[in-house]
Amino acid sequence: MNTFGHLFRVTTWGESHGGAVGAVIDGCPSKLKVDISRIQSDLDRRRPGQSHLTTPRQESDQVEILSGIFEGQTLGTPILMLVKNEDARPSAYEHLKDVYRPSHADMTYQEKYGIRNWQGGGRASARETVGRVAAGAIAKQILHEQCGIEIVGYVKQIHKIFAEVNPKTTTVEQVDQSLVRCPDPQASKEMIDCIDRARQEGDSVGGVVESIARNVPVGLGEPVFDKLKADLAKGMMSIPATMGFQIGSGFNSTTMTASEHNDPFYNDAGRIRTRTNHSGGIQGGISNGENILIQTAFKPTATIRKDQQTVDIGGNEIVLSARGRHDPCVLPRAVPIVEAMMALVLADHFLRQNAKNLETPAP
Amino acid sequence: MNTFGHLFRVTTWGESHGGAVGAVIDGCPSKLKVDISRIQSDLDRRRPGQSHLTTPRQESDQVEILSGIFEGQTLGTPILMLVKNEDARPSAYEHLKDVYRPSHADMTYQEKYGIRNWQGGGRASARETVGRVAAGAIAKQILHEQCGIEIVGYVKQIHKIFAEVNPKTTTVEQVDQSLVRCPDPQASKEMIDCIDRARQEGDSVGGVVESIARNVPVGLGEPVFDKLKADLAKGMMSIPATMGFQIGSGFNSTTMTASEHNDPFYNDAGRIRTRTNHSGGIQGGISNGENILIQTAFKPTATIRKDQQTVDIGGNEIVLSARGRHDPCVLPRAVPIVEAMMALVLADHFLRQNAKNLETPAP
Amino acid sequence: MNTFGHLFRVTTWGESHGGAVGAVIDGCPSKLKVDISRIQSDLDRRRPGQSHLTTPRQESDQVEILSGIFEGQTLGTPILMLVKNEDARPSAYEHLKDVYRPSHADMTYQEKYGIRNWQGGGRASARETVGRVAAGAIAKQILHEQCGIEIVGYVKQIHKIFAEVNPKTTTVEQVDQSLVRCPDPQASKEMIDCIDRARQEGDSVGGVVESIARNVPVGLGEPVFDKLKADLAKGMMSIPATMGFQIGSGFNSTTMTASEHNDPFYNDAGRIRTRTNHSGGIQGGISNGENILIQTAFKPTATIRKDQQTVDIGGNEIVLSARGRHDPCVLPRAVPIVEAMMALVLADHFLRQNAKNLETPAP
Amino acid sequence: MNTFGHLFRVTTWGESHGGAVGAVIDGCPSKLKVDISRIQSDLDRRRPGQSHLTTPRQESDQVEILSGIFEGQTLGTPILMLVKNEDARPSAYEHLKDVYRPSHADMTYQEKYGIRNWQGGGRASARETVGRVAAGAIAKQILHEQCGIEIVGYVKQIHKIFAEVNPKTTTVEQVDQSLVRCPDPQASKEMIDCIDRARQEGDSVGGVVESIARNVPVGLGEPVFDKLKADLAKGMMSIPATMGFQIGSGFNSTTMTASEHNDPFYNDAGRIRTRTNHSGGIQGGISNGENILIQTAFKPTATIRKDQQTVDIGGNEIVLSARGRHDPCVLPRAVPIVEAMMALVLADHFLRQNAKNLETPAP
Repeated sequence: MNTFGHLFRVTTWGESHGGAVGAVIDGCPSKLKVDISRIQSDLDRRRPGQSHLTTPRQESDQVEILSGIFEGQTLGTPILMLVKNEDARPSAYEHLKDVYRPSHADMTYQEKYGIRNWQGGGRASARETVGRVAAGAIAKQILHEQCGIEIVGYVKQIHKIFAEVNPKTTTVEQVDQSLVRCPDPQASKEMIDCIDRARQEGDSVGGVVESIARNVPVGLGEPVFDKLKADLAKGMMSIPATMGFQIGSGFNSTTMTASEHNDPFYNDAGRIRTRTNHSGGIQGGISNGENILIQTAFKPTATIRKDQQTVDIGGNEIVLSARGRHDPCVLPRAVPIVEAMMALVLADHFLRQNAKNLETPAP
Repeated sequence: MNTFGHLFRVTTWGESHGGAVGAVIDGCPSKLKVDISRIQSDLDRRRPGQSHLTTPRQESDQVEILSGIFEGQTLGTPILMLVKNEDARPSAYEHLKDVYRPSHADMTYQEKYGIRNWQGGGRASARETVGRVAAGAIAKQILHEQCGIEIVGYVKQIHKIFAEVNPKTTTVEQVDQSLVRCPDPQASKEMIDCIDRARQEGDSVGGVVESIARNVPVGLGEPVFDKLKADLAKGMMSIPATMGFQIGSGFNSTTMTASEHNDPFYNDAGRIRTRTNHSGGIQGGISNGENILIQTAFKPTATIRKDQQTVDIGGNEIVLSARGRHDPCVLPRAVPIVEAMMALVLADHFLRQNAKNLETPAP
Repeated sequence: MNTFGHLFRVTTWGESHGGAVGAVIDGCPSKLKVDISRIQSDLDRRRPGQSHLTTPRQESDQVEILSGIFEGQTLGTPILMLVKNEDARPSAYEHLKDVYRPSHADMTYQEKYGIRNWQGGGRASARETVGRVAAGAIAKQILHEQCGIEIVGYVKQIHKIFAEVNPKTTTVEQVDQSLVRCPDPQASKEMIDCIDRARQEGDSVGGVVESIARNVPVGLGEPVFDKLKADLAKGMMSIPATMGFQIGSGFNSTTMTASEHNDPFYNDAGRIRTRTNHSGGIQGGISNGENILIQTAFKPTATIRKDQQTVDIGGNEIVLSARGRHDPCVLPRAVPIVEAMMALVLADHFLRQNAKNLETPAP
Repeated sequence: MNTFGHLFRVTTWGESHGGAVGAVIDGCPSKLKVDISRIQSDLDRRRPGQSHLTTPRQESDQVEILSGIFEGQTLGTPILMLVKNEDARPSAYEHLKDVYRPSHADMTYQEKYGIRNWQGGGRASARETVGRVAAGAIAKQILHEQCGIEIVGYVKQIHKIFAEVNPKTTTVEQVDQSLVRCPDPQASKEMIDCIDRARQEGDSVGGVVESIARNVPVGLGEPVFDKLKADLAKGMMSIPATMGFQIGSGFNSTTMTASEHNDPFYNDAGRIRTRTNHSGGIQGGISNGENILIQTAFKPTATIRKDQQTVDIGGNEIVLSARGRHDPCVLPRAVPIVEAMMALVLADHFLRQNAKNLETPAP
């Protein structure tokens, strides 16, 4: 299904090499001022061709809004946003028409649907995430205006290089000063070298995006199935190339005892807070007011130039020598995508919780 | 929300110390023979009091089916299953009525709902998973009957003890021979010691459950948001105490290059398969016919006997000396829960894919 | 699907002759005081055996609540309500096991599901509506407590007898003084005679239930598909034996011109109101603050004692001489069902609209 | 909400005077050949300016498809269709900016959303149905290709003129030969006169659209809430200006006895059929293989040229002398809209039923 969310609902559409890609937002509250430049700015952070580290595909990714906004404000009706595909080169994929690229979605799409748009990955392309980023930019504006929520993502790890980042204070500006969106300058430099090396070798590398949401109110999350951590996990694992998700102490929690891991409560001038935040801001599936901290693992991009063993659509075993444009590392461009999905989850849960804020009837 | 699934839909209900817990399954296909002893058997694997390693709460957890099954077969109508709460001891929680236990859901439930059933965790208790396990047992029967799918979960890690398990061949019987549901005998023994130690110290430990689905057909998963990995992640992260999820090579993939990580295709006597399975059986969010392999991280149980700093409902800082029954490690009992959620995800996606299997019209 | 509603969600379950029937409410706001006697009271209005005009099946229909309510208040967790089947007599249906009763659901259930519970109509029985009425009684309490909404249904027509009722003022008490739930005393008397006659002839009659909701706030309804009138129509047409639905002037509007039909606005001491209410309280799919007035048509009950031509499950043409208990007219018992569905629709839309009531941020 | 359907899901978007209107179809099966000329043909039947009987607004309503179709076939991915607004004249509505037109959605939209696009009705305009008709045209193709289903709608009544039409045999071609889409030539002529008269008087008239679906397989419909009649009712009542819905004998059934109304089954050369079809092709909420016959009532268009009492946004009572383009009767253009909604409901239920068509496992 191509719709995400229960009250703040986003439907994305579009193939990598079709006419356009985009999204419809349904359920956006009315009378919100929308700053289109901030949508564009997030799209610019996602778009290809930002630096020599990303695919050279040239897309200006200019957003057009065809409905739902009137005189700068949301109408409460569906918001249709689209971005045209400009630098599509179907012919560049002609040689891949009948080939199943290893660890790509070619085989599974062909088997599931009996047909696929073989031009550039079709719907399985990361280009699909344009709609997510555009919608997420609106979700961010709502969250910021309503609760002051700030969402900041950054590259925490690329291949074997791990960054030191203070999630409590890092800003988007600091993140964007790095070509790889890693606000640890030393790690950033090493990551750039690492990606360059992978590119030269015709190979690719993966890594981890960490993302934080600050100023989240207590009470978001709908147990038992729509726990906030569950919907965040789904949102992240719906992004192409993701392999893992963790919150707070994550997999590391498994080697701690509860007396080490439990987050003691204290009274911070009237507000109940926790001294540590191993829980990552969520307890019982509900936000507890601390920072929400998540990590998402991305595998190395499947597209590489090295020769690979594979089969074609007829089942013949062949050697694939791939050509075509691709990213030697998706992590820098994944940062705004992770942020967008985090914003979509939080905006949806914000409305869901708000639905239950009833008036206390007079006695 | 307490409903999971799009076509095969499970709604769970019930508090830890209310009258009963249970589930309604809606959307179950008709004319399936249901073996109730297999539902009971999975409930027995989940129930407390199985061994000295688990909470001493005594619940026989006998399932009653009140609708949807007629003469041993599903009617295609909602299946209501319930299990009575027998050994509820609300008074044992009286001293916790106004206390927020660290890393529990007491505070977040109270803040979100303005009220909570403080008797034994209410809805945030793992007792809620009774309904999941009962429903999952029916999902397993459908999957097995329709495609021969086998789902096997086991404990892969407890605290700092890591087991060696061959996911391709391990059986439920082998798993259940171990008190901790770890089919590696040496690791199992060490895990038992580890849990015993934690229990004696009034502490608790966490770990990792690994789960495999074998014989999954190609084509399950509904991009872009309901990718199979996304729904598995959501299912797992909706289980109490989970902190992380990964599929296939998971977080380890981040330190590999694509030339190491990609899974080469080959032709295995007419069936397209991959030589390695770093993808964990899913590519582009769609099952590729290989084994689906996932890992779920559980934190150490929040309930411990050691003194802890915390606050009460009035914001007063206090020291909590907990009493009451609890598990020093939830991992052994988590295995059937993980299997159940995996089965629910696969059964739902099996029906969703089946919906699209249209007749090819005559030419 | 057996779930109704988007935020206030009701799932009903249970066969006419299974162990029990009931409902789960998910999404009910927390901290609402629930008066169980009012649930029981609505169930009593629906239950069989109320008078000589209804089926003689004896069911006390005592509601049991197994979860979601704690110390008299909703917890915000799922509310499981059940009613045991006491006077089920499967043997009374033995002769119908292989017969398709005309205008019943026997044939369509058998063909759709390949199996059916032939004991008393199974899931197609009006007994299924027990869960709706119980859930609706809680919805009514929310609506009344939050906005003062009153819902009153009554029989407007039975067979060829039409009642005169003032929808603005009629009360539930007035309605319930009539055996047929028609607050027009003269018509009520004639309706009773009409039903008696039908019963004696082994035949049955249909009619129209009118239902009004007073004090509905402006703004409920979610265009374009979840318009309030659309969800009301769906709710009503999901009730067994319904054949038609109309709102406000309904089908009569088709013979009026707009200059006759349009509802002029005026200013009623600061509140914008309409002088007429042909719109039935809804414009553009959204409540306008006027009374919501709907009518639902019920066909004559399909079960009759007269001989009928039909076929059996093997396709053999036979004559059916039905026995068994049945209502010669369902209208009196349909009133609380119509009210319940109206309440469920309004409660759901009330929460949906409330979700969007955002704080205006400080300038 | 602006999404309709559970598996075959349509989301419409767009304001009357925004950049464009359109729809996304999600869940459309893959490998279906799509004949775009048939989409255009249905849009042409809906578009304004077809004759002197409709609004003179000039829109060519050319459909553009931006995703989901590749080399003439569906990909199984979202299909984005859009139609540009060409003849929007916002200035023509300037005088209505602060006015609440009687029986329009101006007041309710303003109150619900706190803002509205006052240019031509915004989202409440019938222009929103462009997306429905485009999506419905694809649904029709699926239904026809898979089961031979034919859907034919026509005008059954305008104001006080009632047509005689044989629903079993009437064709779209016969319907479209009439300017008012009424295949009864005598009634058609009178209807044209009636509409002309209304137009000259600055008034408008309503009526009834009847719609039939032939060759519907047995088994469509998902009790208890998603009964086929319930979803048809919702689909119809979500169309602008609708006031009532009925199926089969509808409200007329209320004056019949069961012995008159029940549809006797017989064996028609191996197929179980009914001799009469008072049920309208649906029993127990499930299609029974007979023709599905429904009627939808449309009120007289709210826009008229005659002076009307109303209020402005400030609550001041004023007299409205409307200008602007409008239809003196929407019925002729409503026919393809009704057909589209009927097709969307049936296509969705066809997939839902297909999901449950499981293989019988080998013994």
